[in-house]
Amino acid sequence: MALNKNPYKGCRDFYPIDMKCRNYLFEHMNKTAKSYGYEPYDGPMLEEVELYKAKSGEELINDQIYSFTDRGNRQVAIRPEMTPTLARMVANIHKQEAKPLRWYSIPNLMRYEKPQRGRVREHWQYNVDIFGAPAGLGELEILNVAISFLTSFGATEKMFSVLINDRSIVDGIFHKLMKLETEKAYKLYKVIDAAKKVDQAKLDSMISEVVSDVEAINILNEYLAIKSLQEVSTFITKNDLSNECENFLKIVESIKDLGLSKFIKYDPTIVRGLDYYTGLVFEVFDQHPDNRRAIAGGGAYANLLSIFNESPLAGIGFGLGDVTLKDFLETHKLLPQFHSTQSDFYLCYLDESEQSECFKLAHILRSKGLKIEMNLGTIKFNKIFKIAENKGHKIVAILEKKDNELALQIRDLKTRNTEHFKISDIDNIVKSFK
Amino acid sequence: MALNKNPYKGCRDFYPIDMKCRNYLFEHMNKTAKSYGYEPYDGPMLEEVELYKAKSGEELINDQIYSFTDRGNRQVAIRPEMTPTLARMVANIHKQEAKPLRWYSIPNLMRYEKPQRGRVREHWQYNVDIFGAPAGLGELEILNVAISFLTSFGATEKMFSVLINDRSIVDGIFHKLMKLETEKAYKLYKVIDAAKKVDQAKLDSMISEVVSDVEAINILNEYLAIKSLQEVSTFITKNDLSNECENFLKIVESIKDLGLSKFIKYDPTIVRGLDYYTGLVFEVFDQHPDNRRAIAGGGAYANLLSIFNESPLAGIGFGLGDVTLKDFLETHKLLPQFHSTQSDFYLCYLDESEQSECFKLAHILRSKGLKIEMNLGTIKFNKIFKIAENKGHKIVAILEKKDNELALQIRDLKTRNTEHFKISDIDNIVKSFK
Repeated sequence: MALNKNPYKGCRDFYPIDMKCRNYLFEHMNKTAKSYGYEPYDGPMLEEVELYKAKSGEELINDQIYSFTDRGNRQVAIRPEMTPTLARMVANIHKQEAKPLRWYSIPNLMRYEKPQRGRVREHWQYNVDIFGAPAGLGELEILNVAISFLTSFGATEKMFSVLINDRSIVDGIFHKLMKLETEKAYKLYKVIDAAKKVDQAKLDSMISEVVSDVEAINILNEYLAIKSLQEVSTFITKNDLSNECENFLKIVESIKDLGLSKFIKYDPTIVRGLDYYTGLVFEVFDQHPDNRRAIAGGGAYANLLSIFNESPLAGIGFGLGDVTLKDFLETHKLLPQFHSTQSDFYLCYLDESEQSECFKLAHILRSKGLKIEMNLGTIKFNKIFKIAENKGHKIVAILEKKDNELALQIRDLKTRNTEHFKISDIDNIVKSFK
Repeated sequence: MALNKNPYKGCRDFYPIDMKCRNYLFEHMNKTAKSYGYEPYDGPMLEEVELYKAKSGEELINDQIYSFTDRGNRQVAIRPEMTPTLARMVANIHKQEAKPLRWYSIPNLMRYEKPQRGRVREHWQYNVDIFGAPAGLGELEILNVAISFLTSFGATEKMFSVLINDRSIVDGIFHKLMKLETEKAYKLYKVIDAAKKVDQAKLDSMISEVVSDVEAINILNEYLAIKSLQEVSTFITKNDLSNECENFLKIVESIKDLGLSKFIKYDPTIVRGLDYYTGLVFEVFDQHPDNRRAIAGGGAYANLLSIFNESPLAGIGFGLGDVTLKDFLETHKLLPQFHSTQSDFYLCYLDESEQSECFKLAHILRSKGLKIEMNLGTIKFNKIFKIAENKGHKIVAILEKKDNELALQIRDLKTRNTEHFKISDIDNIVKSFK
């Protein structure tokens, strides 16, 4: 029986044209991270399951993780997210490194998802994190990196928004104003996390399942109605939460000072995963009506190293997946056309006696930095152009004998403009392509 | 209990300094492949196990593969090699694509190995393959790519050799000269594959376990004593195998014509895996006495698409692992020093009133292509240099007030050479780092 030619469910094959798009996204990721002084890192594709049980959410462990027992009876998992690996690596070296640590990575991750638009089982995720930065300034830099990354493709504030919130605000409301016990606060976090996905009636009933006190519900509703950084600052001051939210208020001031308010909005329903985050949380949202989805998410986590019995080290970071990024860029027409060849030209020889010379010439030109696809075997002159075009080339170079000397005819397939070079004249050939 | 801070057994963490080395290797892989017109591709990290059962060797399936059953009851495996994925992808598109197809990839692969020097469980493998090339010329190009790749690091013919053989020679000897049945031929292949790892007495006894005929053993021993391309050509002609080995003889001629004999040697014990290869086979060997190991291996395979019920399409390719490559380059001192920072300079401000200006300046300089790590928070002037040095910087830039105007003092930490720029003079600041 013939084997299946499809990739494993929910995974993607990257043919050259797809791979060029992926490489284009990765180049922007590398460039932005490096422009802020972030250093690359990576960890293994497999980790012991224990690493995820400590901090990853229940849904991930129970339903989404690819885990199995290895031949040495170890419980292992294909990495579903990068932060636990990052925490493990930072725990190993943080004591001897100058702070802040600025690190980024682009790992492939796997989750057992039901494949649908924007969701696949294997994706690549841009992870950018800073550790040990002064309070408020690490957050500011990470927000800047996320915005710089998207604007590097030409995206504007009309196309995306960074929706921010802070766990200190929600904690302050739950504990100081609403006086909830820990268990109820935990449940109410889940309700707020789901707020955007349900209508008002459903939300009201979800809230009343957790809270019965009318005054508390009023405070919560007042909070959920907040629409701007200005309003939330007023709410914090009015409700005497300034001490609890001092860091957040400082971040908001900096956002205004730096003119970032056009990108950064306040959203009371952003709370993110419950187990990592302790301060600022944010999600980058596509503003296009056809693609209203999160492109990236992140926040500040103060206690991640505690699972390794290490002293606390404040971290802030975000993750951004290649699939949602590509959807965003396609939706806003920010992706270029990718070409089917990256070579400088298609090199051909007409007679078998020229084969060795042609291989040697190609070798020299390549060693001088040119990218050359060579036609293997002899070819009839009038067939060259069709073949080169089929392969996506714009220029052909034909080795030919002229006056008993080898020469190179270089022809632009579109303009039909033709130049002739002696093959001894290597430097000029190279120069005409640089 | 505190979690384990080590990576999963046999896998590597890539801290920034390790990652820079890996990126350096990958850059050479990309550059060499592109210089020959090879296009990038990639497949999923998981494949269905059936794909490997069809062609991968028994040892790989039984002892080395990471396989498990997914939540949908599919038997899947983490890719242990790339060729089956490549064959699957090529089977999907080969009919509509212009030949030859030139493809390369750098996937991460996993095998259940006992960790030791040069062997880890997760490695990255450079895969370069050509499909549908004219007989003899695809092989020549692939050999050229492998050699160009290693010489791009500065490696010479003293440091490595490409050891070649051809299945047509071994098949000719086994079937035409020794007249072995298929089963015995298969066993003898395994004996030859192991020849280099055992002494002569052991080899003799392994041979006599398969073959008893004295004349056949003499032919085999004559073959195993061949040491050069010249000798094997003579052997082929003398034993009337020229028809069977026509393609190989043509390749040998081309190797001589192109002056590649200094890199390419003949080795009768190179036969490679039994299931893929049908023609030329080769291994790249480190020539250093401390590291006599294969760095890469490959060959020609004519029938790989048959497992998908597709018409045959001749392929030739090689795989080269990042671990053995790094060992090779280290052994021959061909690796550069990797620096702990890639930034152009370390940017600092002294007074909190300059914070916004400093963030804005950094933003503009980055958007003009500079890589800038910024000190977050104010810093005392006399502490800057120590901190910048600890982070590996060579140059610091300090925002300061001069004559009531903001200026940038740029200082080379080694030469102590200092330049002053008005911050309005952005273009000159950028120019001095380009």
